[in-house]
Amino acid sequence: MVKKPAPDVTRRSEKSRRAIHEAALALVGEVGYRRSTIEAIAARAGVGKQTIYRWWSSKADVLLEAFLDLGEQAGQKPCEIPDTGDLAADLRAVLRATVDELLDPRFEAPSRALAAEGVVDEQLGREFVTKLLEPRLQLYVRRLRSAQEAGAVRPDVDPRIALELFVSPLAQRWLQRTAPITHEYTDTLVDYALHGIAER
Amino acid sequence: MVKKPAPDVTRRSEKSRRAIHEAALALVGEVGYRRSTIEAIAARAGVGKQTIYRWWSSKADVLLEAFLDLGEQAGQKPCEIPDTGDLAADLRAVLRATVDELLDPRFEAPSRALAAEGVVDEQLGREFVTKLLEPRLQLYVRRLRSAQEAGAVRPDVDPRIALELFVSPLAQRWLQRTAPITHEYTDTLVDYALHGIAER
Repeated sequence: MVKKPAPDVTRRSEKSRRAIHEAALALVGEVGYRRSTIEAIAARAGVGKQTIYRWWSSKADVLLEAFLDLGEQAGQKPCEIPDTGDLAADLRAVLRATVDELLDPRFEAPSRALAAEGVVDEQLGREFVTKLLEPRLQLYVRRLRSAQEAGAVRPDVDPRIALELFVSPLAQRWLQRTAPITHEYTDTLVDYALHGIAER
Repeated sequence: MVKKPAPDVTRRSEKSRRAIHEAALALVGEVGYRRSTIEAIAARAGVGKQTIYRWWSSKADVLLEAFLDLGEQAGQKPCEIPDTGDLAADLRAVLRATVDELLDPRFEAPSRALAAEGVVDEQLGREFVTKLLEPRLQLYVRRLRSAQEAGAVRPDVDPRIALELFVSPLAQRWLQRTAPITHEYTDTLVDYALHGIAER
């Protein structure tokens, strides 16, 4: 039988874990990914670096978990996109929530630092896409499949490409600061993506 | 009267300029934006750094001009998108050419280095959007306006947002390596953007 840790030990570990997550996110937002070493994260969290190495094998792992934790704190469970039967309304709601998240200062600096490093560091980029970004995109795939079953989306449409019509414009405006992001903007994207821009 | 320089001096300057552009692009692709100093660019180009300071006020300026020069060498004049009267065909052609450009190894590393720095350095990001990216996006705005005048695009559509339905997905796939980029993919984007994904 595996002996379970006493409740207060688990609580203490959870507290350390969260302190390390917060230190990692704050540091990477301030000095960038490359200069955020395990040592610096440990120092900022007020723990020994062996504490970090006990739980994670790399700083990429620490940050990945920190982002997942941040998402959960913000109430975003990696659950389904609402399916009220009104695809446009459901997409508008989830994209408006994404706009709010992107404009949240707790999220902004560390996310930018990580995204920037992923652009030039292929391995890191692919790891974060696989573990962090793609699972969120798959939520849209499922919602669009359900809409196809309900006859709301053309059956020949590939949902993995279709979702990019509203997700990628928002991502590019945020990443490259090409233009402001607002709820009105994402509502417009949903309209154009669903109904097309061509005259009928 | 302003005295024009003798032809051979102009030619020599042009040659130095191009050597500096090439050195700047190669260096930034190899060591990233921050470590590509004016000194290092000068050393690589085999010129004195005062030669660089005579022509440009910052390394951002050198790189901006180097990218414009690279685009011109690749035959992309900052001219109009073809207007054959067939919007879908014109968009497919220009996006296929963009895929080829994004996959060109001469372009890849320096573009990634610059894009990554722009994600975290707001001033640099905005400068390159203003001078490099937005002028290219405006070509799509003009093509879509012409399509509106021809009755091919809904009159209530905002062309500056509409273009993002096919440009941004390609940009995100390239920047964040979320999925492969191919001609078939961009053709599909054009179809979805023009006709919408909703059942009619």
